[in-house]
Amino acid sequence: MNKFNNKAISSLKAIISSRRDIRGNRFLNKKIDDKILNELLEAANNAPSVGFSQPWKFIIVKDNKKREKVYKNFLKENKKAKKIFKTNEIYPNLKLEGIKESYLNIAVLYKKPKKDVLGQTTQKKVGEYSVVCAIQNFWLMARVYGIGVGWVSILKAKKIKKILGINDDYKLIAYLTVGYVKEFLDEPELKKIGWEKKRTLNDITKL
Amino acid sequence: MNKFNNKAISSLKAIISSRRDIRGNRFLNKKIDDKILNELLEAANNAPSVGFSQPWKFIIVKDNKKREKVYKNFLKENKKAKKIFKTNEIYPNLKLEGIKESYLNIAVLYKKPKKDVLGQTTQKKVGEYSVVCAIQNFWLMARVYGIGVGWVSILKAKKIKKILGINDDYKLIAYLTVGYVKEFLDEPELKKIGWEKKRTLNDITKL
Repeated sequence: MNKFNNKAISSLKAIISSRRDIRGNRFLNKKIDDKILNELLEAANNAPSVGFSQPWKFIIVKDNKKREKVYKNFLKENKKAKKIFKTNEIYPNLKLEGIKESYLNIAVLYKKPKKDVLGQTTQKKVGEYSVVCAIQNFWLMARVYGIGVGWVSILKAKKIKKILGINDDYKLIAYLTVGYVKEFLDEPELKKIGWEKKRTLNDITKL
Repeated sequence: MNKFNNKAISSLKAIISSRRDIRGNRFLNKKIDDKILNELLEAANNAPSVGFSQPWKFIIVKDNKKREKVYKNFLKENKKAKKIFKTNEIYPNLKLEGIKESYLNIAVLYKKPKKDVLGQTTQKKVGEYSVVCAIQNFWLMARVYGIGVGWVSILKAKKIKKILGINDDYKLIAYLTVGYVKEFLDEPELKKIGWEKKRTLNDITKL
């Protein structure tokens, strides 16, 4: 099939525009079946990758002790961030992660290549970017199932790798929190509270 | 709406699994209406971004002289790549770009932040990764419309920025070629020709 039908077009638009970055205040304590989790991982695994290298690893983290350690690292890093945003009254009240409230966490890794990769000879970074394409596929597939994803970036990568026993063959690209949610807001929360304005097409196509 | 219906689920699966990286041998010489191009850009603009920073720019390149210069840079960089893969008989015959055959090209840029960004205080790279999420949204929305996208990475970023008059406030994340296509192969081409095997879920979830 070349072009999809109009239903598929409007449904993709709705999925993309209703996807949200989910924090701990919205996760439900509800199991995700392995069958569904596997569909999200299949979507990730069907992402584009430089030279078809598929350099991604999705390491599922359910263990509470590990999550507690990751959470402690978040607190430490967010303490520093609070200082950076110290003149802002909103920042300290923002819920910026859902490490413990989500059903599971995923450490998404880039496996550094051990041989030359087709297409990666001039720009090395495209390997990492392939992993991000996989994350975005995962995020959209989660959204259709009513599963929320939060990308937690206030974490020291080196420390997270140590907690999870990940060696230097891998680079941490993202730490995701995944679970069913109470609701998906009709707009991104940071837009709602006036943190940032939504860019227009004119903004994003002009230098 | 929390969960989408089964039709939306299967249609997203079909979109994701039938998306391909398109090269010059498959592009058609057919105009993309601005209305449709804007829908692809809207999809990109609805991607997740760290601190809702939306740090992406999509610079449309139609000018043939600029494309010719970009193509020359590809030839130069691919000459080096051919040396790297010199023991491989397949490499020299692979079509690895569609710079001139596609309807248009897009330079996708990351706008470096001029102030502190929420969520980007510990890991700086997440800003670039937001741009890649936008690219993947664009790619999927293109696919439903029967429009193909190719990510050309055998290009020297510095040189491409110079050709397009882009200053150092921006980093080149991707150079995309975009156009209607004759066909989407049923499998990635590099899988078909045996360049790389498809990873399994077991491969991508275990260290």
